Amino acid sequence: MPRSGEDARKRLRHAALELFAENGFDQTTAAQIAARAGVTERTFFRHFPDKREVLFDGQNLLNTALSDAIAKAPPELPPIQTLHRAFASVTEIFEKNRPFSEPRQRIISGNPALQEREVAKHAAMGRAVAEALQRRGVERPRADLAAQAGLAVLGYALHAWFADSSLRLDDYLDRGFAELHNLASPTDPR
Amino acid sequence: MPRSGEDARKRLRHAALELFAENGFDQTTAAQIAARAGVTERTFFRHFPDKREVLFDGQNLLNTALSDAIAKAPPELPPIQTLHRAFASVTEIFEKNRPFSEPRQRIISGNPALQEREVAKHAAMGRAVAEALQRRGVERPRADLAAQAGLAVLGYALHAWFADSSLRLDDYLDRGFAELHNLASPTDPR
Repeated sequence: MPRSGEDARKRLRHAALELFAENGFDQTTAAQIAARAGVTERTFFRHFPDKREVLFDGQNLLNTALSDAIAKAPPELPPIQTLHRAFASVTEIFEKNRPFSEPRQRIISGNPALQEREVAKHAAMGRAVAEALQRRGVERPRADLAAQAGLAVLGYALHAWFADSSLRLDDYLDRGFAELHNLASPTDPR
Repeated sequence: MPRSGEDARKRLRHAALELFAENGFDQTTAAQIAARAGVTERTFFRHFPDKREVLFDGQNLLNTALSDAIAKAPPELPPIQTLHRAFASVTEIFEKNRPFSEPRQRIISGNPALQEREVAKHAAMGRAVAEALQRRGVERPRADLAAQAGLAVLGYALHAWFADSSLRLDDYLDRGFAELHNLASPTDPR
């Protein structure tokens, strides 16, 4: 996509968040989002199949970035370490989106259909990560287990970071993987 | 629910699976399921809000059984060991449902709306397990991490057991928790 296409897409994302927050998700139309972003409705639909997808655009970018990072990790790196490295390589995406995360989450929490789509997107991310591990030779169901445990750590780190961003997301990732190790030990000392 | 109510519910589950397999999910009505089960349509709707839910009835039973088992584990048992014990205590539910698991999965795989509901049910199970851990004093986001890692192990074990039921589900659970420990180790030796 040319630079101007990327730019329009970004403006559409921001305009959608603003309008959903101001007027509610159900009351906002694709036409209004396009107008606020300064593009035509046709441009809106060139980028997004519907207004719901505008909220999940980051997730598609993220899946691609993660799959690439998993593919590029040294071949001998074990699955969870591969995921740790891949997550650490995409923290910038989360950091850039940080200002939009809370309004976005508030909109999703208020709408069961959006919550359902979020759950489906999360499942799709798990599949993408598991498939990227399988392409490195990790067999199912081990690849699924690693993908799900890894995404659980990412969720842990994001939750902690949203609650207190005095530490960097990277640090919370380190802490999350250490926590997973602790939990998974046969004799968790705590 | 009285014994006869339980019995009708079970007959409805079986009748639904048969009819979905014979005629397809979309082509089957609640009235047909009721007729096959030998109950009135009114009885159907006393048990289930719609025909989709019939396929997920086991999941509700399972969530309750799991939450109970988590509550009853010795208070000093760490989260993952609590989940291991709780899962091991409900393997009977899976074993009883084994003959229906494959036809059920085939029906769900063929229908995007059912797949979406399955994903949503799985997310609900994660929340139920995390909440049961929180009631034991495990704080979020650690409870969420443990719940998700634990459910990933359950998924691993079920996948392996469906592929080869020469071992018991219990054995696959032991193997799955060992695999999680292996994966989560800072120096996975493989």
